[in-house]
Amino acid sequence: MSSNTFGKLLSVTTFGESHGPAIGCVIDGCPPGIAIAPADFVHDLARRATGKSRYTSQRHEADEVEILSGVYEGKTTGTPIALLIRNVDARSKDYAEIAQTFRPGHADYTYWQKYGIRDPRGGGRASARETTMRVAAAVIAKKWLKQRYGVEVHGWLAQIGGIRPELSEGAAIDFDSVESNPFFWPVAAQVPELEHYINALRKAGDSVGARVNVVAVGVPPGWGEPVYGKLDAELAAALMSINAVKGVEIGAGFAAVVQNGSEHRDEMRLDGFTSNHAGGILGGIASGQDIVASIALKPTSSILIPGHSMNTAGEEVEVRTKGRHDPCVGIRATPIAEAMMALVLMDQALRHRAQCGDVGEVSPRIA
Amino acid sequence: MSSNTFGKLLSVTTFGESHGPAIGCVIDGCPPGIAIAPADFVHDLARRATGKSRYTSQRHEADEVEILSGVYEGKTTGTPIALLIRNVDARSKDYAEIAQTFRPGHADYTYWQKYGIRDPRGGGRASARETTMRVAAAVIAKKWLKQRYGVEVHGWLAQIGGIRPELSEGAAIDFDSVESNPFFWPVAAQVPELEHYINALRKAGDSVGARVNVVAVGVPPGWGEPVYGKLDAELAAALMSINAVKGVEIGAGFAAVVQNGSEHRDEMRLDGFTSNHAGGILGGIASGQDIVASIALKPTSSILIPGHSMNTAGEEVEVRTKGRHDPCVGIRATPIAEAMMALVLMDQALRHRAQCGDVGEVSPRIA
Amino acid sequence: MSSNTFGKLLSVTTFGESHGPAIGCVIDGCPPGIAIAPADFVHDLARRATGKSRYTSQRHEADEVEILSGVYEGKTTGTPIALLIRNVDARSKDYAEIAQTFRPGHADYTYWQKYGIRDPRGGGRASARETTMRVAAAVIAKKWLKQRYGVEVHGWLAQIGGIRPELSEGAAIDFDSVESNPFFWPVAAQVPELEHYINALRKAGDSVGARVNVVAVGVPPGWGEPVYGKLDAELAAALMSINAVKGVEIGAGFAAVVQNGSEHRDEMRLDGFTSNHAGGILGGIASGQDIVASIALKPTSSILIPGHSMNTAGEEVEVRTKGRHDPCVGIRATPIAEAMMALVLMDQALRHRAQCGDVGEVSPRIA
Amino acid sequence: MSSNTFGKLLSVTTFGESHGPAIGCVIDGCPPGIAIAPADFVHDLARRATGKSRYTSQRHEADEVEILSGVYEGKTTGTPIALLIRNVDARSKDYAEIAQTFRPGHADYTYWQKYGIRDPRGGGRASARETTMRVAAAVIAKKWLKQRYGVEVHGWLAQIGGIRPELSEGAAIDFDSVESNPFFWPVAAQVPELEHYINALRKAGDSVGARVNVVAVGVPPGWGEPVYGKLDAELAAALMSINAVKGVEIGAGFAAVVQNGSEHRDEMRLDGFTSNHAGGILGGIASGQDIVASIALKPTSSILIPGHSMNTAGEEVEVRTKGRHDPCVGIRATPIAEAMMALVLMDQALRHRAQCGDVGEVSPRIA
Repeated sequence: MSSNTFGKLLSVTTFGESHGPAIGCVIDGCPPGIAIAPADFVHDLARRATGKSRYTSQRHEADEVEILSGVYEGKTTGTPIALLIRNVDARSKDYAEIAQTFRPGHADYTYWQKYGIRDPRGGGRASARETTMRVAAAVIAKKWLKQRYGVEVHGWLAQIGGIRPELSEGAAIDFDSVESNPFFWPVAAQVPELEHYINALRKAGDSVGARVNVVAVGVPPGWGEPVYGKLDAELAAALMSINAVKGVEIGAGFAAVVQNGSEHRDEMRLDGFTSNHAGGILGGIASGQDIVASIALKPTSSILIPGHSMNTAGEEVEVRTKGRHDPCVGIRATPIAEAMMALVLMDQALRHRAQCGDVGEVSPRIA
Repeated sequence: MSSNTFGKLLSVTTFGESHGPAIGCVIDGCPPGIAIAPADFVHDLARRATGKSRYTSQRHEADEVEILSGVYEGKTTGTPIALLIRNVDARSKDYAEIAQTFRPGHADYTYWQKYGIRDPRGGGRASARETTMRVAAAVIAKKWLKQRYGVEVHGWLAQIGGIRPELSEGAAIDFDSVESNPFFWPVAAQVPELEHYINALRKAGDSVGARVNVVAVGVPPGWGEPVYGKLDAELAAALMSINAVKGVEIGAGFAAVVQNGSEHRDEMRLDGFTSNHAGGILGGIASGQDIVASIALKPTSSILIPGHSMNTAGEEVEVRTKGRHDPCVGIRATPIAEAMMALVLMDQALRHRAQCGDVGEVSPRIA
Repeated sequence: MSSNTFGKLLSVTTFGESHGPAIGCVIDGCPPGIAIAPADFVHDLARRATGKSRYTSQRHEADEVEILSGVYEGKTTGTPIALLIRNVDARSKDYAEIAQTFRPGHADYTYWQKYGIRDPRGGGRASARETTMRVAAAVIAKKWLKQRYGVEVHGWLAQIGGIRPELSEGAAIDFDSVESNPFFWPVAAQVPELEHYINALRKAGDSVGARVNVVAVGVPPGWGEPVYGKLDAELAAALMSINAVKGVEIGAGFAAVVQNGSEHRDEMRLDGFTSNHAGGILGGIASGQDIVASIALKPTSSILIPGHSMNTAGEEVEVRTKGRHDPCVGIRATPIAEAMMALVLMDQALRHRAQCGDVGEVSPRIA
Repeated sequence: MSSNTFGKLLSVTTFGESHGPAIGCVIDGCPPGIAIAPADFVHDLARRATGKSRYTSQRHEADEVEILSGVYEGKTTGTPIALLIRNVDARSKDYAEIAQTFRPGHADYTYWQKYGIRDPRGGGRASARETTMRVAAAVIAKKWLKQRYGVEVHGWLAQIGGIRPELSEGAAIDFDSVESNPFFWPVAAQVPELEHYINALRKAGDSVGARVNVVAVGVPPGWGEPVYGKLDAELAAALMSINAVKGVEIGAGFAAVVQNGSEHRDEMRLDGFTSNHAGGILGGIASGQDIVASIALKPTSSILIPGHSMNTAGEEVEVRTKGRHDPCVGIRATPIAEAMMALVLMDQALRHRAQCGDVGEVSPRIA
């Protein structure tokens, strides 16, 4: 019920402000017996971390995860798993001068309108620092999905400003390439161009939007639920809840607007579907094809170019955001989008098991 | 928790299959004292109804709402409001021959994979007939939002296949026009063109996708919640849960991918925001601007053009969908999209009142 | 979330007022493939029905269940099951004169304080008529528990006023006896005494309290959850939510207050536990022993003896409740208590299956 | 949804094992602007603490609360409040020898049956150490209830074994007495008798049960919800979820079994109710009278007297619990019961405000 909790059966509650003492999460409903150690979190947290390259924010956080509960002798016990990360590189004074000012494009104004009080240090709770815990929680989800069902989730940067990966249509994504560069970009040859583009943006004190794609491979047909618990509806909420996301597509997405039915519908042959405009979901339930989603991220609002705004006294002011920021928040949204898809899938997997028994139990079925 | 229930405080549970005896819903958490009568439902249900014009499905349902509970002497009592609509024009035999066949683009295959059993009559629970109850429930939400806070929700068809409204950028939508034609189209002069287009599609036995826009005017700043209960996240889920929706945008949506930060961020002046790329939501919380969403709808899957598929025996079959269907389901999605936005807003309004007191209670604030 | 919905995974939403057009429920999350027909509801609804004997209320309702959704060709499909019962013997005029009066011991005053409006006809939503749908929903739960896990739930009247069953301590309950008399009384020989007692109460225009015991046999060890989702905590809520219940005990209950630890703790031997003071639950989780609960029901508040009260105008008035009422509501609480225990168990069974896999999957275990 | 989360709108998620690195909680949905500092937690945590006297467990924990989030410049911000307490006096080796043994009366066996794995150190998650966080969270609830509505919650020990407070019937409880002795006992003169009794128990290596009463004063009429969200149903769950509780009564409780309706129903006069057998709740909704609950606590299961049990190898073993334990866990259950009642009331207060507006908004009403 709480707005800081995600998931129905695998439920993740996050807490913490950008410049408070710590961020953390509590993961409840996790099956027992999963091997989990602090080292498991290093890889994905590093992928998400700001400061990993010159192309994202220069804040440096070690992001060391302490497991406070729910794991005994290296295995989950079925009780709540609390993860804690201390904030180390918090520089609250960077934000002193904007405590009474609403930065354009930020949640400063709306938090103040809602609560009548807000923590102005680095955006407080509205900071993307919160997403660290989503990625941490999803480490467990990814591991379980992989081990138990062979499901894998992969994301990549699919557009940054006007630049798209130079791939022929339908070409498979090379995930080694994606992981080999700081942009999660699937075409290694374009990386120098991206570096040049981002550097120019930084110099101009501006930022740009991006598109991230994320896909789940190996999802068994049947996961998902009808009507309001649709797999695509929950993916939409999960992805839209990521900071800066302004749009979500499943499968063909907005391209479906101009498609005819004879083109869009995915036909089936003996050896399977002949296309995947549905993005692997029909009626809210997985079809067994790849689950495919794409999201739009707005450009970073914290930029050096001054903008008009208001302060809490009702005066018009000019704002020029200092501090350490990404010219394109979309880049590091890639592992976050993977995380949200993994959490949705694990939650739906548990719900499917509750109602229908484990995969393969209900019969008869093809496939 | 249940996948057929929508909303946390204003909670709507729907039930019923396309060709079962009835569809209905239970609305719980509704404030007491709202005047509600069966006549209140007529207008919006007629807007949603199939059969309202030659351009949508020819199924004819009176959609007469019976109020079974929760209303005493014409006013809501605070207890659950049950609404019931009997299915009249159910022609189950139309579907007999597809009981063992998975229609391409439909949920037939996935329901069967999930449950091992399915009601094949008209898509059963996966039919858009379910959305009737969303529209009915939202009649109460719209009324309350209007009376208590002056909030109004309006939708229109923003694209059908390649045809867009001939409007200059930023032009206000003329909602009288929208309501004056069977396409919810904002430019009356284009209606003959649309009629021609849809008729041609029908003759060809094909269908096409569409885009629907929906806007809420007058939403007080502060509604919405952080992180996973974000207003935009819940709108995304609500809209994506509508049958055939493949994409959701808030504000600038996917256009944000190519925007710079200096362009996208909405600056504020003494007299308010100077643009609305955010779509009225910052950090998941309403800013006081119009809440703006746009959705993509796939083309109707039920078309006359034969397609390849499978049956439950594992054989490849050819499917040609008979029955009564819309060449463009997107058209009547307009009032459904309005309904989902209204339900999300009322739910968030109640949640805001719970935590922060009613609008205006927390102070100090501008605006 | 809604206060008219029960259960997390098997979720039952009830609606309807005592003298409105109908009562009903929506059951969501039910596994597919369970055979269900209207005839299945007859037995338990008759057990609960008022008018079944001279010893309970004289209201006559056929309680015919219409299945509106979720069942196809006689089997559950996994989609929401809506059940509807029309109210037939509603006599609203019986209640006209108390519309402005708060009957002592009833919810009239509190509903009015909460909502500022209430349906006065027969107590409206606060009437025990609502429990009809709990019993109906639990018919499905009982069937599933029995078929899949061999679990059975049985209740009996364990005390009425000062009269207790004449049973030696630890004697097994004879459920044939329980079902053979209108009091759900386990000792047939005492039935004439009870008849005499109730008739005397009725003549005196008074009523009396009762105690109902309910037991679940065959519950696998492991069902239940820690901390707030404890099996006993959820049983307590479920049973306390029944009209007129003022107390709930699990196992030894209040007798534990005077027990020593050496007496209360249930020791284990190779062939199992040697006692069951725990009532089959340790740490909120089933131990495999019988789940044992006991509830206290207050005497019917609707009695002929006049009492002092207030009206909505703030005047003191004398109230003498007419209408048709039970001298002891506790009698027919027996099948309702069974229903609530069955619903809790099925919900917990599904939740256990979600997190830990089906019974027997996790290993190693004794038992 | 998660079993480690309590409350719908004021939602408290706890985590941590008895001998893990820390225990903690996340409180979500808290209204903004409440002044909170670490010092606020000292008093109630000390009341609950083991080691506060010779009469409870000798484990010594400082229980220093660190506020990790949700509070800025000393006030709640409306975002999740995380509280952390490090475990200091954990002696895991005390438990090494029982890692493979199921202690009688403990959750060892049931956790193992459920999860196939368990943290044996001090009962792990099933330890009463978890209740520390309930008390901590309730500090905020108590403060808010008092400041905003004048509501106070008080508990006392009402029976220990066969000893009851020597009070004339209906006598007011002297809460100064309650707070002046380590037994929360309302009659100071009996304290020496209690000391003698507990010392004798400790010497005998045995334990005893207890009864705790808890009352809320000043609750406005109208809080609470119908049917499954009844105030008494939620109190029952909240109180039954406390470790060792075996029974819950509201108002007259089990005494209602032998009452006549003419005695039990609380009549109203111009100056209010003339009795309170209802315990302040009618139809699940507060009447404005004191909310009165009473709970039964089983005797401590950890005793020195050996008992028969099993181990994970399926062998019969003799168990004699060492470690540091209370001869009567019921004593320190007093502040825990207060905590659970306060959490239920604050949650219901927020829910009431959501649906019906703040207290006093709906009209007309008496009182």
